[in-house]
Amino acid sequence: MTTFGESHGPAIGCVLDGVPAGLEIDESFIQSELDRRRPGKNAYATARKEADKVEILSGVFEGKATGTPIAMVIYNTNQKSRDYGNIRDLFRPGHADYTYWEKYGIRDYRGGGRSSARETAARVAAGAVAKLMLRKIGVKVESGIFRIGDVEAGNYDFDYARNSEIFALDPSMEQAQKDTVLRAKEAHDSIGGAALVRASGVPVGLGEPIYYKLDAALADAMMGINAVKGVEIGEGMHSAELYGSRNNDEMTREGFASHRHGGTLGGISSGDTLEVKVYFKPTPSIFKPLKTLDIHGEEVTCELKGRHDPCVAIRGSVVAEAMAALVLADMVLLNMGRRMEDVARYYGKRNG
Amino acid sequence: MTTFGESHGPAIGCVLDGVPAGLEIDESFIQSELDRRRPGKNAYATARKEADKVEILSGVFEGKATGTPIAMVIYNTNQKSRDYGNIRDLFRPGHADYTYWEKYGIRDYRGGGRSSARETAARVAAGAVAKLMLRKIGVKVESGIFRIGDVEAGNYDFDYARNSEIFALDPSMEQAQKDTVLRAKEAHDSIGGAALVRASGVPVGLGEPIYYKLDAALADAMMGINAVKGVEIGEGMHSAELYGSRNNDEMTREGFASHRHGGTLGGISSGDTLEVKVYFKPTPSIFKPLKTLDIHGEEVTCELKGRHDPCVAIRGSVVAEAMAALVLADMVLLNMGRRMEDVARYYGKRNG
Amino acid sequence: MTTFGESHGPAIGCVLDGVPAGLEIDESFIQSELDRRRPGKNAYATARKEADKVEILSGVFEGKATGTPIAMVIYNTNQKSRDYGNIRDLFRPGHADYTYWEKYGIRDYRGGGRSSARETAARVAAGAVAKLMLRKIGVKVESGIFRIGDVEAGNYDFDYARNSEIFALDPSMEQAQKDTVLRAKEAHDSIGGAALVRASGVPVGLGEPIYYKLDAALADAMMGINAVKGVEIGEGMHSAELYGSRNNDEMTREGFASHRHGGTLGGISSGDTLEVKVYFKPTPSIFKPLKTLDIHGEEVTCELKGRHDPCVAIRGSVVAEAMAALVLADMVLLNMGRRMEDVARYYGKRNG
Amino acid sequence: MTTFGESHGPAIGCVLDGVPAGLEIDESFIQSELDRRRPGKNAYATARKEADKVEILSGVFEGKATGTPIAMVIYNTNQKSRDYGNIRDLFRPGHADYTYWEKYGIRDYRGGGRSSARETAARVAAGAVAKLMLRKIGVKVESGIFRIGDVEAGNYDFDYARNSEIFALDPSMEQAQKDTVLRAKEAHDSIGGAALVRASGVPVGLGEPIYYKLDAALADAMMGINAVKGVEIGEGMHSAELYGSRNNDEMTREGFASHRHGGTLGGISSGDTLEVKVYFKPTPSIFKPLKTLDIHGEEVTCELKGRHDPCVAIRGSVVAEAMAALVLADMVLLNMGRRMEDVARYYGKRNG
Repeated sequence: MTTFGESHGPAIGCVLDGVPAGLEIDESFIQSELDRRRPGKNAYATARKEADKVEILSGVFEGKATGTPIAMVIYNTNQKSRDYGNIRDLFRPGHADYTYWEKYGIRDYRGGGRSSARETAARVAAGAVAKLMLRKIGVKVESGIFRIGDVEAGNYDFDYARNSEIFALDPSMEQAQKDTVLRAKEAHDSIGGAALVRASGVPVGLGEPIYYKLDAALADAMMGINAVKGVEIGEGMHSAELYGSRNNDEMTREGFASHRHGGTLGGISSGDTLEVKVYFKPTPSIFKPLKTLDIHGEEVTCELKGRHDPCVAIRGSVVAEAMAALVLADMVLLNMGRRMEDVARYYGKRNG
Repeated sequence: MTTFGESHGPAIGCVLDGVPAGLEIDESFIQSELDRRRPGKNAYATARKEADKVEILSGVFEGKATGTPIAMVIYNTNQKSRDYGNIRDLFRPGHADYTYWEKYGIRDYRGGGRSSARETAARVAAGAVAKLMLRKIGVKVESGIFRIGDVEAGNYDFDYARNSEIFALDPSMEQAQKDTVLRAKEAHDSIGGAALVRASGVPVGLGEPIYYKLDAALADAMMGINAVKGVEIGEGMHSAELYGSRNNDEMTREGFASHRHGGTLGGISSGDTLEVKVYFKPTPSIFKPLKTLDIHGEEVTCELKGRHDPCVAIRGSVVAEAMAALVLADMVLLNMGRRMEDVARYYGKRNG
Repeated sequence: MTTFGESHGPAIGCVLDGVPAGLEIDESFIQSELDRRRPGKNAYATARKEADKVEILSGVFEGKATGTPIAMVIYNTNQKSRDYGNIRDLFRPGHADYTYWEKYGIRDYRGGGRSSARETAARVAAGAVAKLMLRKIGVKVESGIFRIGDVEAGNYDFDYARNSEIFALDPSMEQAQKDTVLRAKEAHDSIGGAALVRASGVPVGLGEPIYYKLDAALADAMMGINAVKGVEIGEGMHSAELYGSRNNDEMTREGFASHRHGGTLGGISSGDTLEVKVYFKPTPSIFKPLKTLDIHGEEVTCELKGRHDPCVAIRGSVVAEAMAALVLADMVLLNMGRRMEDVARYYGKRNG
Repeated sequence: MTTFGESHGPAIGCVLDGVPAGLEIDESFIQSELDRRRPGKNAYATARKEADKVEILSGVFEGKATGTPIAMVIYNTNQKSRDYGNIRDLFRPGHADYTYWEKYGIRDYRGGGRSSARETAARVAAGAVAKLMLRKIGVKVESGIFRIGDVEAGNYDFDYARNSEIFALDPSMEQAQKDTVLRAKEAHDSIGGAALVRASGVPVGLGEPIYYKLDAALADAMMGINAVKGVEIGEGMHSAELYGSRNNDEMTREGFASHRHGGTLGGISSGDTLEVKVYFKPTPSIFKPLKTLDIHGEEVTCELKGRHDPCVAIRGSVVAEAMAALVLADMVLLNMGRRMEDVARYYGKRNG
């Protein structure tokens, strides 16, 4: 999967290679996934409106994937010209302004963190195609918010989360989590949060033993999302506190007796529900004065204006779900040639 | 980097591509790194002895890298024939026995989790070469244990850790951590732990903006190590609880005023010290009876015998350090062509 | 480099990763390269007109590359609805209709060979950026036609070729080559041809010793162009007839005394002019009846209508030139970290 | 596939990832393939003897592939210490001495071109495993010499070639070809040659439409073999002289009526016999004085001594065959997920 485009350019998009031919590509589903990530819907996200209307450029014919690369484009409708005067020469704290400047010696000050956040729309579109494919083999990928600031979910209800304005997993904590977001927003501040991605129906055997482990690929995909600073599989870092006799999941004829391993053993899916936790830092864009440097090395004060998500984790959870779907779809295809008997049967049937 | 070999085969090894020509390859340093990971040295690791003697097969001439792939091999000296009768047909809980069996329909019961642990020796050898290269540009990679079970370090002393039998970062907690390991061992159990990897002197600008971010590559490398279930950069998952005004690191002429970002911003190194935390589950091999299935789907009891690390995190910290060095070395090379002026100067000088 | 899009979709495009920041991106040059490939200009190419107007979506700011991926898009203006009735169910001889149908079980009959030919416009745009970069370090990539049917060039004049309607390298053979094309066209037939790509000013040392050799990468890039059936470096297949004493190029203080090796030795550039010959089969679309099968396995007669290049090699030579530039640009960047002294100097300077 | 090692080191080897589990790994077959490439057997190859005994280090258990990487090693038994005095400081014409020196600033003068030739033994071992896999699905890969100097085969008999001392495809030309080799050898010279690789039983549909075309991957693999300067598929460069009406292969219910396309259409296998021609330059090591430079830039005379293949194409044909098998095996596995109905059926069956 390749994505392209920038927040202030005319369009962003993605190219998806390897989608199996014949898969029905339901554009309205792709659009509905984009709508989940879309800003401007309520008080808990940036007020900036983006239409996020997807168009398919190639790889689909009469509603089905043709097997060739699927290119999708999302036009930017909210490119209003802005005054960047106050930030064009300084490094916003917590943003990549400084690292880009040092790396490239040139910087598109109109973009910065925003550009990348916008780029995630293309990832969601690609993830939607992956979900269409996974659905065909009984794999369901879901996500939701389990933590905002210090308010943590006790129970996980993914159906509830899907319709919650903040994708809250626990209905009983939703209001407290919303309040935390609004409190941060009113204080011209932002707040961190964390999402849980769950995949059920995952076949046993996905992932390669050394160089493309399922858990490593998921960690790569998740940590690559803007603002993510921590990733866990299953019991995660808590397992570092446990005894082996407490952490090992016993097996019975009905399946795993407990689920601490989180769906991967030795980098390969176990068939048990996959659980990945993703931790987002608070949005770096806040509306309080902070000390920083400018490109001349002078100390200045950065005080941003504009519209930003008070809690980037909320929309980030949709992106994390999409990335997990992309990783799983890739592994599903890669896994088909792992046994000689399967390879021989496949080509044997085709040859008659 | 490619590694090969299995615990019970005659040798394991690795192939390292892209090592810059002219780098002095100090074999005794590579050997000393291997010795740090080597089992059989004290009561806190498995009593199994492995000589772990490294031999360079190619890519080095008169003590220097030639630019062609460096192949190194480590012969297995401890391949004593063993009775695997009790485990050959069952799936050890917490191990990859079940997932390999389901994936491949065939399983080398002599290996399993052990084989992979052995494979990490090759990673340490490769990491040692990466460290030799990084040293030349002033980058230092270190590691140590900050948590064993519920005993956590308060201070980090990497020099101390290097000589500690359990690589403890905090001298004042070392004894309590050692006691925790021994208690687990005496109870025929195992215990989890966590390592901190730190890299200082990292140049600003390492990492690519979208598809090979530094933090994503580190997460991939770390989660790909056996038994790792969680990875954090900088403040990590704690940042999910913070307000933006608390989490953003201000910049001054002296550098970053605080270090919560952990050395990467936007997936690119900031020049600040890089900090990665890696969480290991307890060794799944314990000597207590656990319920499991055999390959015929019958419920059986698994009770292992033999010698195993009571706390895989300890030796795992050396592996994590090696993997971080490999990621950084790769990014150091990739980064050299990021500015046109550098490219033009480089080739301009060569052309006279 | 990733390309996307299809001939009948709304747009095609490409994404270029790794372009060094600060490179001036001259859009009019990119456009002029596209114009060279553009059909509809004269009697020797298809009469189908395509505007081939390029637009940059990302990665360029104030006329310079920012270091982030450069996305370019070319809108399709000639998507007139067509009657595909006569070909939708049959396999055109010499085309990929049959192989796509067997592979994917679904086929976008509006595309076929045409779609891929259209896709090469995106490659030319990408190649133009590569040429802008190569120009900065003194590398010049050129191409021309040396053979059409049985009419072969005796001399090579690349400046002449650039302005020739058929990119003819030899002015004295141009008319005979043009006549050959027109004769094929009038006979409702097509004709093969061959292009020579030459790169001068190539630094010594490009290419990796085993897995990314310069000659192998060029062969990959060239054979991947539609209709290419043969690739040669330097003396090429003629060298298979020679004695070593005739084929080896001696070296003198002035450089190579002869140029049979074609610019690569051991997969690495020698600094001598790079010469690659690329052989194109005749356009498979001809307007004569041919026997073939339809998707039901029945024997049918295929008789195409429409507008097609009588000699695909002509415009193919521009594509081959672009692909060579892309390979060289990639190798130029990869090569910068091959010596430890260069790596140390680079980072030493940056650290002061 | 990764290979490692150098001619003068203790061993060379390879690592093969992705071999399907359960494949019977017949070591004696692998050895017999190595024996075909092995030097020292007759007057037409170098007299240097190498035992080329292969040992499997991992990935095979009880005679079958386990699905994990297969590592194989071939020990060097002929590392006799040699006097390199006469060549250590000069650039042998036609060799990579100069390009390596310029690229890396350091050179293992004991290796050079020879080292790479030795490295091809590892490729043959890897190719043998690929052939074992391909055999299971009815694909047969063969090769032979069709040209030595100006003596070209008129007929192709692959069974005959397998047992010919020079792998000659045409029994009636074998003696003339042998005479040509011996004449070159006696003149202290060398001679070029060309091999034909043929694969029959190839399933329709191998190869990806844009980025991993079958013909491009074959060209990459072939041009990456030492001394190869030209590659053709099917009619190859001759097709550049043809009219479309002559070049297109018509289809009938019995299959293709002619075979000029060489088994690929649009980069995807057509099910017709695959034919690749590979052209080798004469061995650059000859025993005649040639002008060259030394590492100080002085003009010197190079006059080699020792034992070298008079015609590198002969043993090269075995390497080309192995490389083709590796490409095909990779594509066979990749191809399994190209249709959604296959993916769904595969996972549907596994889930009950």
